[in-house]
Amino acid sequence: MAKENTAPLKGTRDFLPEDVRRREHVLAVVRDVYGRYGFEPLETPAMERLETLLGKYGEEGDQLIFRVLHRGAELGRALDAVRARANGAAPESREEARAAFKRDELALADSALRYDLTVPLARVVAEHQARLPRFFKRYQIQPVWRADRPAAGRFREFYQCDVDIVGSRDLVCEVEVTSAVCEVLDRLGFDDYRVRLNHRGLLRGMIEAAGVPLEHEVSAITELDKLGKVSPDEVRASLVERGVSADAAARLLEVALVATDRRPDAQVLEALEDTLRSERGRAGVADLRQLLALAAHAPCGRRLRLDPSLARGLSYYTGPIFEIQVSDLAGSLGGGGRYDELVGMFLRQPVPAVGFSLGLERILVVMAERGMFPNLAASAQVMVLRLDERTTPEALRAAAELRKAGVRTELYPNIDKLGKQLQYADARAVKLAVFVGEREQAAGEVAVKVMATQEQHVVSSGALVETVRRLLGT
Amino acid sequence: MAKENTAPLKGTRDFLPEDVRRREHVLAVVRDVYGRYGFEPLETPAMERLETLLGKYGEEGDQLIFRVLHRGAELGRALDAVRARANGAAPESREEARAAFKRDELALADSALRYDLTVPLARVVAEHQARLPRFFKRYQIQPVWRADRPAAGRFREFYQCDVDIVGSRDLVCEVEVTSAVCEVLDRLGFDDYRVRLNHRGLLRGMIEAAGVPLEHEVSAITELDKLGKVSPDEVRASLVERGVSADAAARLLEVALVATDRRPDAQVLEALEDTLRSERGRAGVADLRQLLALAAHAPCGRRLRLDPSLARGLSYYTGPIFEIQVSDLAGSLGGGGRYDELVGMFLRQPVPAVGFSLGLERILVVMAERGMFPNLAASAQVMVLRLDERTTPEALRAAAELRKAGVRTELYPNIDKLGKQLQYADARAVKLAVFVGEREQAAGEVAVKVMATQEQHVVSSGALVETVRRLLGT
Repeated sequence: MAKENTAPLKGTRDFLPEDVRRREHVLAVVRDVYGRYGFEPLETPAMERLETLLGKYGEEGDQLIFRVLHRGAELGRALDAVRARANGAAPESREEARAAFKRDELALADSALRYDLTVPLARVVAEHQARLPRFFKRYQIQPVWRADRPAAGRFREFYQCDVDIVGSRDLVCEVEVTSAVCEVLDRLGFDDYRVRLNHRGLLRGMIEAAGVPLEHEVSAITELDKLGKVSPDEVRASLVERGVSADAAARLLEVALVATDRRPDAQVLEALEDTLRSERGRAGVADLRQLLALAAHAPCGRRLRLDPSLARGLSYYTGPIFEIQVSDLAGSLGGGGRYDELVGMFLRQPVPAVGFSLGLERILVVMAERGMFPNLAASAQVMVLRLDERTTPEALRAAAELRKAGVRTELYPNIDKLGKQLQYADARAVKLAVFVGEREQAAGEVAVKVMATQEQHVVSSGALVETVRRLLGT
Repeated sequence: MAKENTAPLKGTRDFLPEDVRRREHVLAVVRDVYGRYGFEPLETPAMERLETLLGKYGEEGDQLIFRVLHRGAELGRALDAVRARANGAAPESREEARAAFKRDELALADSALRYDLTVPLARVVAEHQARLPRFFKRYQIQPVWRADRPAAGRFREFYQCDVDIVGSRDLVCEVEVTSAVCEVLDRLGFDDYRVRLNHRGLLRGMIEAAGVPLEHEVSAITELDKLGKVSPDEVRASLVERGVSADAAARLLEVALVATDRRPDAQVLEALEDTLRSERGRAGVADLRQLLALAAHAPCGRRLRLDPSLARGLSYYTGPIFEIQVSDLAGSLGGGGRYDELVGMFLRQPVPAVGFSLGLERILVVMAERGMFPNLAASAQVMVLRLDERTTPEALRAAAELRKAGVRTELYPNIDKLGKQLQYADARAVKLAVFVGEREQAAGEVAVKVMATQEQHVVSSGALVETVRRLLGT
């Protein structure tokens, strides 16, 4: 009989204890810092109504949504509908076949797995408005699911780690979320990152000033977003391919790359302002100026760097945008921005919001590559051995006492030879082994062995906790 | 335009900050206690291969599994197959129709949402055997999904909280997992619970001794499991309905209810032993005797109480079984037992295991009803107000300093009237409001207002952290 496939599904991972400890190390810092900023935790269900998700992530996104199949009678009815259509005429064209497929797909499921944490936030804001504070500062750390083709560092199940302020248009909110993210990175030990800063209004102004027709705005932003991954020449070529004139493409790139000459941000803004003609572009410059002035008094100040080439692919941003860059990673460690027209989508009224999403998986990758994890405690510090049945009561009592004192203690579960138990204690990397033999039992004593040095202390059982604490140095 | 439905899907819940804090309060205790026992965290993906899950939870369970629909070309092929079958002859009988439905259902999905945490554990043990210690002590706290009809306290998405020791047959493991669970409940403030104890071997012995034919064992266990929810007379009637003779049913109930006469556990065991004839029954009694003797030296000892009527519905238990009972809840707060033939299912070899599953949702319900939650800190302790643009730098610096000192601090995001800001600070239940007006700015000072008493302290800005700490009493 062939062994069943027990590997986790493509694009998903099992997190063994060491993995969980590393993830928890990062998440504990995130929760602590976000808590200090007054952000509060939110959690939403893994499944959402399909209609809540469809149409929010573009055509491509819709196809990456995992849908949950109907069951029982509902599935029966859906299958009847599929079969009834099949018994009709065969589809005449590719479009008809495509439409039939979409109709059948839609009949088979009406719920789906969460694709991001922003649409659920918008749903929660609409549903629980009366219970939420006027300024809703929430963080949310939960997995999302996308049927992407798995690749290095790209998974079908991965955690998002979002922080947002809902309800204010004030630029101080940009400074707050960015500072919170910077403090997370600082605390984790990152010391070389930059937060690239741009503004959707400024991008619009640049596009207008370069003479790129507005119907090409989305293409232009998509292409600009690739700068850094592909060369300026390639971006220029792609722009032309998408229908932008060669002149306009060249002018756009020139403006976008103005920051690479390393002038101070204020000077770059001044230079840009001179080239802009539209109200929206100038308003963007004014926002950036004010944001940088505020940031000078906040933890994010020294990390921010204006970069007019930053575009961020997502179409929903309406104001400042951000992206965290480290030298040894092509992608970013996270990004965000202001999006004043998304959170209110279910309320059908604008609800201003600004947020940041940290890329947990990437942070973990970089930290592992750079050896940034502290020595994360293996689960147990002490192993209590079991020499025989008669001394097991003493072993149980020793374990209970140590645990009560907060010492992480494993009890060896079987009665094996002492050597075998010590070998296991060694493999489990505990610092101390504790055991009670017949002699110790008779004398009311307990033996404590330091695994590293093999030195052994026999103390009265009343002194166990104190001895262990001393030897652990806690 | 009708407002879109923004309620969470049937049987699922949004956890707003207060909910998350209560859940986290309980889970932090669980993690801490389990950690002290040397258990390590494991996390597995939400989606599993459908074949991994099917057939593990009985026919009824299979139907409650949420399946994840195929996408794209794969779904196209599945739909083609459905249509092709539809174009053949119509099914002739109900069985044929049922088989056709099952075949179509199976064609449409090959992955599904996790249904429990035990099958994933078995899969992980098979897949990562070489990386796991000989005794794998793991806990796992993750949501599971079941397409059950939602009811009070029954959800379609809910957390399981499992702790297991894999790899040892020693009864000290039963004592360890049960003690860990008891310490969790003790720390949460439960003081009136009992852990009911029985043994599958003893149940078998009782069934034999009562003269219930072995083919009725599963029915007998299922019916016995209802004792406490329904009366002994109803259980007797159900047993007869399921084909057990009236005599045998009466004898079985008599034995099962032997513990209700409040004799000490040891005497109950003796009485039971006298009635048992089979080797397996007597071995069960011997196990229980040894388990109770070991437990006397461990934290679970004073909570355990033998109850021969305890049956636990699940069929996979092979040794001792447990269930936590509190007076004001019909169901249990959790349960567990030894199951030596399940974890090895994918390895095709027996792997002994014993574990306990805590009912997080029920624990939360009982704690809320009894008012057992401590005053869980609202997110922020201090609100820094913003009086105008000119003094915003001081506000930002005050917030940064307080956060650096570990004080949970919210910055009021807008520039509103002072009264409005104070009102909001009050509604957010912060203890202190901090602000810098023009006068304070000029003098290098900062004002700290105690919300409860309205008393106001104006101190030099260098003394802010110290003043806030003193007023917070931290």
